[in-house]
Amino acid sequence: MARIAPVNAKGTRDFLPRELVRRNRVFSLLRETFEHHGYEPLETPAVENSAVLEGKYGEEGDRLLFRILKRGESLQKAARTLETQDRDTSPSAASLSRALSDEALRYDLTVPFARVIAAHQNELVLPFRRYQMQPVWRAERPQRGRYREFYQCDVDCVGSRSLTLDAEMVAIHYEVFSKLGFVDFVTRINHRGLLRSLMALGEVPEAKRTETMTAMDKLDKIGPSGVRRELIRLELGEASTDRIMELIDFAGTPETVLARLEDALMGSSDGLAAVADLREVFEYVSLMGVPADKVKFDASLVRGLGYYTGPIFETVLTGSQLGSLGGGGRYDQLIGQFTGRDLPCVGISFGIDRVFDALAEQKLEDEYTTTTTQALVTVFSRETLAASLAAARELRSLGIRTETSADPKDLGAQLRFADKKGIPLVVILGPDEIAAGAVVLRDLRSGTQSTVPSREAADRALTILTGGETDRH
Amino acid sequence: MARIAPVNAKGTRDFLPRELVRRNRVFSLLRETFEHHGYEPLETPAVENSAVLEGKYGEEGDRLLFRILKRGESLQKAARTLETQDRDTSPSAASLSRALSDEALRYDLTVPFARVIAAHQNELVLPFRRYQMQPVWRAERPQRGRYREFYQCDVDCVGSRSLTLDAEMVAIHYEVFSKLGFVDFVTRINHRGLLRSLMALGEVPEAKRTETMTAMDKLDKIGPSGVRRELIRLELGEASTDRIMELIDFAGTPETVLARLEDALMGSSDGLAAVADLREVFEYVSLMGVPADKVKFDASLVRGLGYYTGPIFETVLTGSQLGSLGGGGRYDQLIGQFTGRDLPCVGISFGIDRVFDALAEQKLEDEYTTTTTQALVTVFSRETLAASLAAARELRSLGIRTETSADPKDLGAQLRFADKKGIPLVVILGPDEIAAGAVVLRDLRSGTQSTVPSREAADRALTILTGGETDRH
Repeated sequence: MARIAPVNAKGTRDFLPRELVRRNRVFSLLRETFEHHGYEPLETPAVENSAVLEGKYGEEGDRLLFRILKRGESLQKAARTLETQDRDTSPSAASLSRALSDEALRYDLTVPFARVIAAHQNELVLPFRRYQMQPVWRAERPQRGRYREFYQCDVDCVGSRSLTLDAEMVAIHYEVFSKLGFVDFVTRINHRGLLRSLMALGEVPEAKRTETMTAMDKLDKIGPSGVRRELIRLELGEASTDRIMELIDFAGTPETVLARLEDALMGSSDGLAAVADLREVFEYVSLMGVPADKVKFDASLVRGLGYYTGPIFETVLTGSQLGSLGGGGRYDQLIGQFTGRDLPCVGISFGIDRVFDALAEQKLEDEYTTTTTQALVTVFSRETLAASLAAARELRSLGIRTETSADPKDLGAQLRFADKKGIPLVVILGPDEIAAGAVVLRDLRSGTQSTVPSREAADRALTILTGGETDRH
Repeated sequence: MARIAPVNAKGTRDFLPRELVRRNRVFSLLRETFEHHGYEPLETPAVENSAVLEGKYGEEGDRLLFRILKRGESLQKAARTLETQDRDTSPSAASLSRALSDEALRYDLTVPFARVIAAHQNELVLPFRRYQMQPVWRAERPQRGRYREFYQCDVDCVGSRSLTLDAEMVAIHYEVFSKLGFVDFVTRINHRGLLRSLMALGEVPEAKRTETMTAMDKLDKIGPSGVRRELIRLELGEASTDRIMELIDFAGTPETVLARLEDALMGSSDGLAAVADLREVFEYVSLMGVPADKVKFDASLVRGLGYYTGPIFETVLTGSQLGSLGGGGRYDQLIGQFTGRDLPCVGISFGIDRVFDALAEQKLEDEYTTTTTQALVTVFSRETLAASLAAARELRSLGIRTETSADPKDLGAQLRFADKKGIPLVVILGPDEIAAGAVVLRDLRSGTQSTVPSREAADRALTILTGGETDRH
């Protein structure tokens, strides 16, 4: 038989139960939290028409798309067209891609969301709160902790300009990260309008704004002196540099910093409107029960340079090098590319792989649960099989996730099997037990075991699994 | 702003909350049932190396693969290679595909499962029971109820020849379909070894066996006379045709039919071994609590012509034209293509889209739940917002999935919003209620409402949502 190498495609992963059980627990927690706040699930297909995706993620993004090759006659036609083209210049990868493909895998969840809103405008009731947890594909060079196929998790609300929604995003981040067990984290909050007015007040020329903001964004990592060095390198002039450094480096509570900024921004209506927005957001965040030390106004937060138009957020672990666990902001213009009319939007995402890295770093992973299965019922022989199958049915009738040994084996082998898989409870039915109308319940976590009458076995198993005591025999 | 048509890729679907809530309920039920029987979750990437997939699904399958276009320099190189080839003959789509692509989207869940087993042989403890629910891609011509991206749901156990596992597959089908509310269904059971020996006993020449079995497989749909007509068309000769018709059309309980078959099969050791296997399967199925009328021995069941080697199963709705809701069987040789050594396997799958069609046909869908959200808290004005946010927190603290109106609006608009979405409970906090320390709970399902003190609101809301009474005021 010709053997095929069982190798994963580059940058992709298999999730075996041991890891998936842990991941699914986190996904459930996210799902529950989102639904708790009235967010509904949405799923879009992996495959999108290229026209939907192209141009949304810059040239880099277009290059990194996983494109679907045309098939059959349309592939042959595309190939013939390429052949008849000028042979002196070799066609670019971009033009080859466009000729040979017209579909691609989704690159993020935001653009498909925008398409859905446009396509289903009449069915959806606005404002529409939705969450989406699905894989995305990017052909980046694989490296440690970076994959080509990975999950994104987005929470967005479309159809309202109310800043309660911006605050709700921060509250959801807070709730998820606290429930996951993180303690030292904070959500940094800023506003794109404020950034725009800072650029104006700092008299940063249009051509240097992107680089200036990129430098500012590093305040968290390289400190004020580092940012100053980068601004000097950009040759903004001393006055501009001083002004920017002054504006982004106020310390204090959001109230005091925003008040000082307000003074500094006198005359910039954009800037003042942004400060007013931020005040509202901080007020609502507090009303929603987020502790004051879990949010922070941060004038240096930039959050990419994409489609954001209003408040922006980013949650970081303080005292960790892992960086951002997720972030988001208000983007009131993206949907318009599909609908022809702008629709206000605000959203937040979770960096799923980063969150798993962080859970490991902070030793918050559940190391003990490595399988969904709770009980193994042993099988000794063909003759005792009926009793084992009956016992398994009893356990399942109480909701205990139970497997029966597939093949009769000696007890040692069956115990080792349960132990290797991490199944906590083994229900032992040997010929002696069956003759005595009893079963042995062995708790592999504690190493204790007890013999109980068959008819009580399921109840006792449930007690053991839900934290009750086992008698030692 | 250039507007982009918000059109789905051909043969793909968006799942809006209204539909997804229903789908997710079914997925949860499947997941719970599988885990109940000790099956663990597994996930594999959407993208596989083409070498893993090619040749596993026949020529047709290779043609229908969603292939990933190469990128960058390797794409340019592939294009140059094509150009330098002989220009007299236009290259086939198959050779173009192989040149321009070396990855593809998974086509089913069985082949990736086999790859995982081979790749992770040392980590996995055998026997390994796993389930997998993920989308697959096939570029078939889209038609009503047929999609190019659709979910498959597979349950398999690798590493044991025990027929208790074959029976477990049937028991899982039974449990899932009963829990979904289906009443008139039956799992047809047969054995590939029996089919092989029927072909031998019927003296069907090797070249006609596939067609003969395809004809037999239609017994369910076209009846004995229809099958006989097809066999006559195959020119098997009268004696062969009679023999086959006799063997596949015994009626009665599995015991009686198997006993009669055993007589008829005298001398065929393959056939007798298959009958013995089937006896065991029926015995275990019964020990696992599956009622006798929910299983049926059916010598005409063929179940494709692929990799099955032992018992095979298929569950159908009796009295419906929808056909099979799922099926499976034992396949002891597939994994060997990856591992180099055979590993016994048995599995069953669920035709997810067919199941949804069947739920609709049998009016078993939950028409009433169209959202995950249970309560809407109204907002009247900026001034009453704090009270509304506090009320929402209270509700959530009891686990009630609650959204707060994003923007202050008149009560009518907020009630219409909840009604359109299908949110059952509206918690009304107007200025009067707030002044009186009360809230109004309005149950949109019954149209009843009650005024209750604020501090009791969350408890009362929970009672209403979990089926308690609302006082009419």
